Amino acid sequence: MTTELFTVQTPPDAWALLTRHFQPHRQTERIATAEALDRVLAEELLSPQDLPEFPRSTVDGYAVNAADTYGATPGLPAFLSVVGEVPMGQRAAIEIAAGEAAVVHTGGMIPPGANAVVMVEYTQQVDEASIEVMQPVSEGQGIIQIGEDIRRGMSVMEPGRRLRPQDIGGLMALGITEVTVARPPRVGIISTGDEVVPPNQAVEPGQVRDINSYTLSALTERAGGVPVRYGIIPDNRDALEQAARQGHAECDILVFTAGSSVSYRDMTADVIASLGEPGVLVHGVSVKPGKPTILAVCDGKPVFGLPGNPVSAMVIFDLFITPVVSALLGVNTPPRPQLAARLARNIASDTGREDYVQVRLETRDTELWAVPVLGKSNLIYTLVNAQGIVKVPLDSNGIRAGEWVTVTLY
Amino acid sequence: MTTELFTVQTPPDAWALLTRHFQPHRQTERIATAEALDRVLAEELLSPQDLPEFPRSTVDGYAVNAADTYGATPGLPAFLSVVGEVPMGQRAAIEIAAGEAAVVHTGGMIPPGANAVVMVEYTQQVDEASIEVMQPVSEGQGIIQIGEDIRRGMSVMEPGRRLRPQDIGGLMALGITEVTVARPPRVGIISTGDEVVPPNQAVEPGQVRDINSYTLSALTERAGGVPVRYGIIPDNRDALEQAARQGHAECDILVFTAGSSVSYRDMTADVIASLGEPGVLVHGVSVKPGKPTILAVCDGKPVFGLPGNPVSAMVIFDLFITPVVSALLGVNTPPRPQLAARLARNIASDTGREDYVQVRLETRDTELWAVPVLGKSNLIYTLVNAQGIVKVPLDSNGIRAGEWVTVTLY
Repeated sequence: MTTELFTVQTPPDAWALLTRHFQPHRQTERIATAEALDRVLAEELLSPQDLPEFPRSTVDGYAVNAADTYGATPGLPAFLSVVGEVPMGQRAAIEIAAGEAAVVHTGGMIPPGANAVVMVEYTQQVDEASIEVMQPVSEGQGIIQIGEDIRRGMSVMEPGRRLRPQDIGGLMALGITEVTVARPPRVGIISTGDEVVPPNQAVEPGQVRDINSYTLSALTERAGGVPVRYGIIPDNRDALEQAARQGHAECDILVFTAGSSVSYRDMTADVIASLGEPGVLVHGVSVKPGKPTILAVCDGKPVFGLPGNPVSAMVIFDLFITPVVSALLGVNTPPRPQLAARLARNIASDTGREDYVQVRLETRDTELWAVPVLGKSNLIYTLVNAQGIVKVPLDSNGIRAGEWVTVTLY
Repeated sequence: MTTELFTVQTPPDAWALLTRHFQPHRQTERIATAEALDRVLAEELLSPQDLPEFPRSTVDGYAVNAADTYGATPGLPAFLSVVGEVPMGQRAAIEIAAGEAAVVHTGGMIPPGANAVVMVEYTQQVDEASIEVMQPVSEGQGIIQIGEDIRRGMSVMEPGRRLRPQDIGGLMALGITEVTVARPPRVGIISTGDEVVPPNQAVEPGQVRDINSYTLSALTERAGGVPVRYGIIPDNRDALEQAARQGHAECDILVFTAGSSVSYRDMTADVIASLGEPGVLVHGVSVKPGKPTILAVCDGKPVFGLPGNPVSAMVIFDLFITPVVSALLGVNTPPRPQLAARLARNIASDTGREDYVQVRLETRDTELWAVPVLGKSNLIYTLVNAQGIVKVPLDSNGIRAGEWVTVTLY
């Protein structure tokens, strides 16, 4: 039995080492805006036009000169001649002079000469061609002015934005029906370990089903990448090296979820080292759970060896691989929201180590509490029963019950 | 010009009316667990086995009888005979007697007779067949017991859970490779209005591009439904009725994003009324923005007429349609996270009306502040520039700057 010599690094040091050797080459593609939900914008977009390009009514009513309504009351209404109606979807063909009004609908164009719209509720029809206005309007009331939503030439969205429903709407409003977005990075996932069998298989004593291929695939999707599963590779140096070469060639990021024992980890480290320069950068991080982690860059591509235990694998994925996917996407918002809650129970830790604790959320009175989920850190059901995770910082030796903590939601 | 007679309802009353006439008929389908990310579970799952089914080591080391190590120190180590190694992925063939130890790897099976594992770091090899143990272990240390993660027959997940990466892992661990999930409801979206043109088209004065078909499609996806767009229907009763009948027949929910003027709204209400009983239930809700909203149930299917302005349409979608999609999915978690922040500016409102205010988030010192986004409530870019939304409750006449509010994130 060989003893592994860990050269354990703190997470910030490990990340600094990784980014020193890894320059993300962002790749882009051009797609229809209608298909761009949750994609990351890779260009700055300037507005090709004013929005709106013509003054529009925000209400149903009458386009008027505001001055004609000043002082109007129900007892002493202003009397105006109705000179026509602005049809929806068409240029206003009429012009309004003093003492005149035109019927306009919500969203319709304001005719030249008018500078306000009186809501129909504040008018009364006298006959076919005249109305009484019972309440004054000020200049600009009931109108969206040219360019009030956005001005021509303005920057409407910056690169790095993950597009939401309203962003797609904002682009459509400007006629921007195609956008350049980041191509999602491909994340190759290789599972190893003689004890690991496919999930659809019965397990014999000593065996476990493959969990990590599937949780890491789903985490990859959540992060904005495309998972590529290479299956379970037998514990055999040649087979592992062959799968590794293929994954390294085909993907932007390669992830091993190695068997959990030292000998597997050593073999994985050897195989990673063979994939290219500079090779393994970090072998062991001061994170609980997740210490036996390998960080590498091989010929410009980040390569990771994750612990076999599913909780560690998930913690380390979020700590290092999600940020690498984000860097390749150029995204400037985190994929998972955070919120503040009070810690329900003391958490002990050691300084010099980051601890990640699974929590449930509970509302007590009106306050949100984060309740640590009990259970050994390598049980998949501690994750299943958790709603989020709390980090105990490197320089802390624990967090007291009652303190406010940041919960990153699942 | 006709004046619409609103029978305005509060949002809770409107919702109560809707749910009185709408019984969600949940439909399910059976899919591969590997493809089930973000899908909603529609069955209760019981564990078909103990997890693990055999005691497993959590460390690399030696399986021992804990009693043999009591009192061991580096100066006075316990001396044990190594009787073999448990190979990964196989049943432990050896048995441990007093004074004996066996090599085990992380994740490996604990051999019969052993009740603890000493980490390799606390041992020293004497020769091929014997070790010294420098530190005592207690019974159960270094071991995950049978069923410690989950017990056979236990409920592992309830219906209504939206499956996350770790949930998929938890199911795979138990060999549950297929699951019954809710079939995503189909949401038909019909855009109307003579002023509305497709986004790829140049706009003439008086025209606007179709925004709502696309934001509502994206919101439908976010909610867990499948959007079906029926395009922009000309302002013509026959054409609208034909599209409405097709959408009502093909979808589970039908949404009109009507032209914004009264005449369109009236026509939409007429067409909705013709789709089936009981027809229109609510015509107008006390929500700002979003008042001119139609809620209906026609032959068992919910039908909505949304205001034409994109901000109102989005607010009302989240207020009524997202919950209907959730009801059809049977999901028990909200699709969008919420957090607490302090309001940066006074918001005025009227009692008897719910107001929805777009906000940006800003961290000042360590506190999160919700800063209302200025701009008229019908400008799409107030939404684009917002990170979330704050509700001013029905019975409130406003919220003061500095108060804590709940922000629903986009």
